[in-house]
Amino acid sequence: MYHGYFNGTIASTDQLTVGVTDLSLLRGYGLFDYFLTYNGRPFQWDWYWERFQNSASRMHLRLPLSKDETYAIVMKLVERSNEASRKNGLATPIDVAFRFILTGGYSADSISIEKPNLLILTEMIHPVPAVQYEQGIKVILDDYVRDMAEVKSTDYKRVILMAEAIRAARASDLLYQKGGEISELSRSNFFIVKGERLITPDKHILHGITRKTVIQLAQSDFQVEERSVLLSDLYDADEAFTTSSTKKVLPITQVGELTIGNGHVGPKSKFLLERFDELVQSW
Amino acid sequence: MYHGYFNGTIASTDQLTVGVTDLSLLRGYGLFDYFLTYNGRPFQWDWYWERFQNSASRMHLRLPLSKDETYAIVMKLVERSNEASRKNGLATPIDVAFRFILTGGYSADSISIEKPNLLILTEMIHPVPAVQYEQGIKVILDDYVRDMAEVKSTDYKRVILMAEAIRAARASDLLYQKGGEISELSRSNFFIVKGERLITPDKHILHGITRKTVIQLAQSDFQVEERSVLLSDLYDADEAFTTSSTKKVLPITQVGELTIGNGHVGPKSKFLLERFDELVQSW
Repeated sequence: MYHGYFNGTIASTDQLTVGVTDLSLLRGYGLFDYFLTYNGRPFQWDWYWERFQNSASRMHLRLPLSKDETYAIVMKLVERSNEASRKNGLATPIDVAFRFILTGGYSADSISIEKPNLLILTEMIHPVPAVQYEQGIKVILDDYVRDMAEVKSTDYKRVILMAEAIRAARASDLLYQKGGEISELSRSNFFIVKGERLITPDKHILHGITRKTVIQLAQSDFQVEERSVLLSDLYDADEAFTTSSTKKVLPITQVGELTIGNGHVGPKSKFLLERFDELVQSW
Repeated sequence: MYHGYFNGTIASTDQLTVGVTDLSLLRGYGLFDYFLTYNGRPFQWDWYWERFQNSASRMHLRLPLSKDETYAIVMKLVERSNEASRKNGLATPIDVAFRFILTGGYSADSISIEKPNLLILTEMIHPVPAVQYEQGIKVILDDYVRDMAEVKSTDYKRVILMAEAIRAARASDLLYQKGGEISELSRSNFFIVKGERLITPDKHILHGITRKTVIQLAQSDFQVEERSVLLSDLYDADEAFTTSSTKKVLPITQVGELTIGNGHVGPKSKFLLERFDELVQSW
């Protein structure tokens, strides 16, 4: 049902393979981006493309396709998903997640970049369980900061290494902090609410497209502050939440042993999730 | 000519491929090891296996094969290389490099480890040009320390990112230092010689098998010190060199703008290279 593109070919994802001299496999040299379609249209396409291009440039990888060429492939893959969903007797087209992966490509000497490999994959969207929106999630603090956090490299070793610690704490994710300064969760951004103020870290973060969207949606109702967020800021926060393309606006009610606000999902988080849902429903 | 093993199959390396849901591709989650054969025998096999196993354990990946099973595959691949070299009319078997790669494996949700993938590849050995042994190499300092340096993860983003800076400085590699403390080169260990003392960093390093071999070879002629090595140690060092399986004992005569000793390859480095060459020739 899910298809992908690699080197001029569109095929079922389970048929797509990469040769073993690719620098992502040999040297962890790769970057990616990830977005959803809503009503069959790529959400915030211009912003995602810009970020993808920026990551590529920061990692000295030349994109093998232009924006328009890439968009044409994206829409071809959307059409394939729709065909598959019609075949399965579904009345409405299904939305999909897109994962773009750009690697250092095949390397003869196992270290030098020759020609980057670009993969464009569609994937099933894994929605966050409704109970997490109702109760909020728990995260645990981790003394870590992502190297080149603003580049969406494929380096997610840390959260995979910490999987057992997260499970043991009955938490959902890590909240990275270094020297008392909070940056982000393992795959999403971080916000706190204090009164009418919406506060989010501005350094050592991936510049999330959902983060940017939420900041826009919040402009008329909040005083938005992009600035350093310290661990001490958690103690008098009314609410906290995290944003990502799949998580949308997901409340955080506990950080380690610390309860945020009154421990329940707050009205500001709910309000912003509603605004976000309205936006994507009419996308 | 070069073959590899993946999931029960031995095939020509250019025929081996990995599916696109592998966590090395999606999340940079992989580790490896790398060693050479001498006279058709894997050099220091026991030590390499121990290190590979240790890396796997540190990254919570279960090895799908035992040491004996792996050794049997290694020797089968050595035999394949010999067959190929006979077919090409070569009288003596060629030695090869082995690269073991263990990844997080295919992941349905793009983040959870299910079953690791193990690749065993043979590769051509790229020997260091003779001129580098005669004149020594230049390295440039880089303000960096590898995360979990003692684990041979596939994370070599840094040196690929810095390739242009290395070229621009007409250097061969990076020498990592953080806060004035030297750890290692991008893919090899670091030693300095002061009089009869052989000094090498002991922290934030990959525990090189060539490093360990050289320390053994040096025992009777040097006072070996495994300890912190500071930038200031470079100023009164007589000699410096780097060790790795392909570099063996490779002299370093320049660090950035600083000349080491008299700028020529020193007698102690030559002595240790000779001892190393004797060892591998009779392996």
